[in-house]
Amino acid sequence: MDLNSDLGEGFGIWKLGDDTALLGIITSANVACGFHAGDPRTMRQVCEEAAKNNVKIGAQVSYRDLAGFGRRFIDADPIELADEVLYQIGALDACARAAGTEVVYVKPHGALYNATVHHEKQAEAVVNGAKAFKDLPILGLPGSQLLEKAEKAGLRPVQEAFADRGYTPEGTLVPRSRPDALITDPAKIIERATRLLAGEIVAVDGSIIKTSAESLCVHGDTPGAVEHARAVKEALGVVRSFT
Amino acid sequence: MDLNSDLGEGFGIWKLGDDTALLGIITSANVACGFHAGDPRTMRQVCEEAAKNNVKIGAQVSYRDLAGFGRRFIDADPIELADEVLYQIGALDACARAAGTEVVYVKPHGALYNATVHHEKQAEAVVNGAKAFKDLPILGLPGSQLLEKAEKAGLRPVQEAFADRGYTPEGTLVPRSRPDALITDPAKIIERATRLLAGEIVAVDGSIIKTSAESLCVHGDTPGAVEHARAVKEALGVVRSFT
Amino acid sequence: MDLNSDLGEGFGIWKLGDDTALLGIITSANVACGFHAGDPRTMRQVCEEAAKNNVKIGAQVSYRDLAGFGRRFIDADPIELADEVLYQIGALDACARAAGTEVVYVKPHGALYNATVHHEKQAEAVVNGAKAFKDLPILGLPGSQLLEKAEKAGLRPVQEAFADRGYTPEGTLVPRSRPDALITDPAKIIERATRLLAGEIVAVDGSIIKTSAESLCVHGDTPGAVEHARAVKEALGVVRSFT
Amino acid sequence: MDLNSDLGEGFGIWKLGDDTALLGIITSANVACGFHAGDPRTMRQVCEEAAKNNVKIGAQVSYRDLAGFGRRFIDADPIELADEVLYQIGALDACARAAGTEVVYVKPHGALYNATVHHEKQAEAVVNGAKAFKDLPILGLPGSQLLEKAEKAGLRPVQEAFADRGYTPEGTLVPRSRPDALITDPAKIIERATRLLAGEIVAVDGSIIKTSAESLCVHGDTPGAVEHARAVKEALGVVRSFT
Repeated sequence: MDLNSDLGEGFGIWKLGDDTALLGIITSANVACGFHAGDPRTMRQVCEEAAKNNVKIGAQVSYRDLAGFGRRFIDADPIELADEVLYQIGALDACARAAGTEVVYVKPHGALYNATVHHEKQAEAVVNGAKAFKDLPILGLPGSQLLEKAEKAGLRPVQEAFADRGYTPEGTLVPRSRPDALITDPAKIIERATRLLAGEIVAVDGSIIKTSAESLCVHGDTPGAVEHARAVKEALGVVRSFT
Repeated sequence: MDLNSDLGEGFGIWKLGDDTALLGIITSANVACGFHAGDPRTMRQVCEEAAKNNVKIGAQVSYRDLAGFGRRFIDADPIELADEVLYQIGALDACARAAGTEVVYVKPHGALYNATVHHEKQAEAVVNGAKAFKDLPILGLPGSQLLEKAEKAGLRPVQEAFADRGYTPEGTLVPRSRPDALITDPAKIIERATRLLAGEIVAVDGSIIKTSAESLCVHGDTPGAVEHARAVKEALGVVRSFT
Repeated sequence: MDLNSDLGEGFGIWKLGDDTALLGIITSANVACGFHAGDPRTMRQVCEEAAKNNVKIGAQVSYRDLAGFGRRFIDADPIELADEVLYQIGALDACARAAGTEVVYVKPHGALYNATVHHEKQAEAVVNGAKAFKDLPILGLPGSQLLEKAEKAGLRPVQEAFADRGYTPEGTLVPRSRPDALITDPAKIIERATRLLAGEIVAVDGSIIKTSAESLCVHGDTPGAVEHARAVKEALGVVRSFT
Repeated sequence: MDLNSDLGEGFGIWKLGDDTALLGIITSANVACGFHAGDPRTMRQVCEEAAKNNVKIGAQVSYRDLAGFGRRFIDADPIELADEVLYQIGALDACARAAGTEVVYVKPHGALYNATVHHEKQAEAVVNGAKAFKDLPILGLPGSQLLEKAEKAGLRPVQEAFADRGYTPEGTLVPRSRPDALITDPAKIIERATRLLAGEIVAVDGSIIKTSAESLCVHGDTPGAVEHARAVKEALGVVRSFT
């Protein structure tokens, strides 16, 4: 199992999350590329630290929306969106190469991640942008348009699960507006990790979802996040990049 | 002699200059990378058109300043500036590669171009950012700190001259605040080109400056710019990229 | 009948439309406030010219989206959107007051205009933002949520019609994706104006829509726009602000 | 003596400093206006909290530089800078009025504060922008061009001192690059406050500078900042706005 997390999500003077601690735990870093967060200095530093920790680098591509942290759907033109994705990957890859490594996968951020579960045109745009750069694996939700379009385009679709999010019986994430959207009980987060090794996710109603997720996402910007990530890693036993 | 021009300097709905016409004339395109102008869609389209016209692509890197079009000095931290340069080159190179070509040189834009004539730290920053990407040639003013630092870092310094700018007897550009800063008389622009072939530039006081410029810059955002560029090309006879 | 148009829609070096010509024709200027276009210098200059021409000033408020010119729906949080509207009105009003005049109405721009036809929360947000500033009239489409919410909040709703847009029999604008979305035939644009004086709009299928529009919008960023505006003004006979 | 501090310096998801704690201590809040920090939601919330705490609101105007937090000199055109200042004051005043209060003074932020100590044109620009809004008091360094130009323009110059910065014998701030730039010893910060009541500042070499500062600035974004501010307030005894 791979362990991924969002990194480099500060901007200029503003910081977010504990990147250094997480880089000692995870195997894949989704690095912000400047559109929802992430200035060039931060991007390069995160790449350098990731390289030292042998953590793989993915491009966490986003709508252009610093003010909204990429968490608001934007009805972007698919052609333009594809080029924005390409731009972001290229910028991050330059930082990664300067650090002796490279971008090896793509994961959309925030509202773009959510939109591309169902929005065919935008899912295709993300895939097109990625493919225009290189045949990179795409990280996404099982059953999403994003992974379907990736597969059709010849890109490797990588299913991911979330350590700290509630699931509906249908296998989608419980919306953040509901009280059971986030799991904060460490015991339950660890249970999620161990069940995942058996190919199972327990939904909020107790039903079992079968899954073949290859990567588990832990978040770094909530209280106790680093401790949770460490506990998840222990529960998983061996973690390694999906690449 | 190489003929270069600034391209892709619109942003979103706003357009600037006649890129298509210039791409039929010049041999090197300094493409804006999103920091003073240039959205990803425009960048990719310019790269595609440049590729079709067999025009070489250079990264026209800038301070982050859309509101000021990169024409205002910013006292940027050299470490951060180097990473901003790296980011911009990477983003443009991704667009260029998607178009089947690549970034083969770097030229700073506007206030960064002017600052790096004398500002050692920023000159070094631009060179460091470029070198972190690849050993790319650097286009700049003869005698500038920029070209000196490039040479020291093992990057090829490429001297350029301007077709439509007045020169002081010392070989620097007449400041834009002075009435003789810009040459608008087509005959004089053509004379500049032909004298350049003989390794000479006539300064505003009539004195002769010896030059070994390999590239001549024509501008595309002034009235009559395209006609001037065409006339300059004819005067030069054979033009080809310096790369 | 009032004649309104969008003005001040450049940004920095980039210009759009012929503001000076339009200010000699129209009676109400919808001035961009910096979120989709409009830098402070441009805003103040437009306000000064509007004051000289006795043209009323309205705040053309928008989503924060320079890259998309405010033409893309953003799923903005209504609380934040209201404050963004308030911010924009305040900024423009400062420019207007420095020119001896003031902001006397509000009109949403682009995608926000379209969204607030049906999107109750965002319509309410625009109204709340405007009301937080002052009890300003709101310009919008007849039947829109925007005008309904304005009326409920005690703000004067002002219905507007478009000189150069096709209407469906239901009184909504034909989407820009359809070929009959835009009217470019000067004779038809003039007919629209004269029929409007009789309280009628002819829809694309020839049916008649009854209207009590108080303001007619002419656009300034299309070829022939200024000539169309002048012709529309002549057809209307007397024009004056709705305020 | 007035006690001022910089507030509302987050942006979107990113937070900075403990505004709520400071608003219980200070008498004047320098509120960020969106150019170096401060989104409209934050601005309005800070204004509401300030109003509740009977804290006066000042516009903390800045260069347009979110990426650099306004801490980098920008060679901005004075005419444009004046309009940017006007824009920022207007935007903040709208937020303040919605909270039942108003902007009653102006203080430049960061690099603009430092530049206007000596840069006549930019000092004049800030004063012109403020005056275009209203005859507002200007907060600045004693002896600065900023306060001199303010006085000439008929605006009230308000001298301020810093609780946690080292002073040269000439009365200017020790540059941040020097080790004695910042005072972190609580005892020395309190001594600064008490000596100030006697019209004196002790410079880093022990010499005494005479001062008639009316306002003392405490910072909120350093470790222990809130505790320092509270101690300073106690040392001062009675604090009240200079307005």
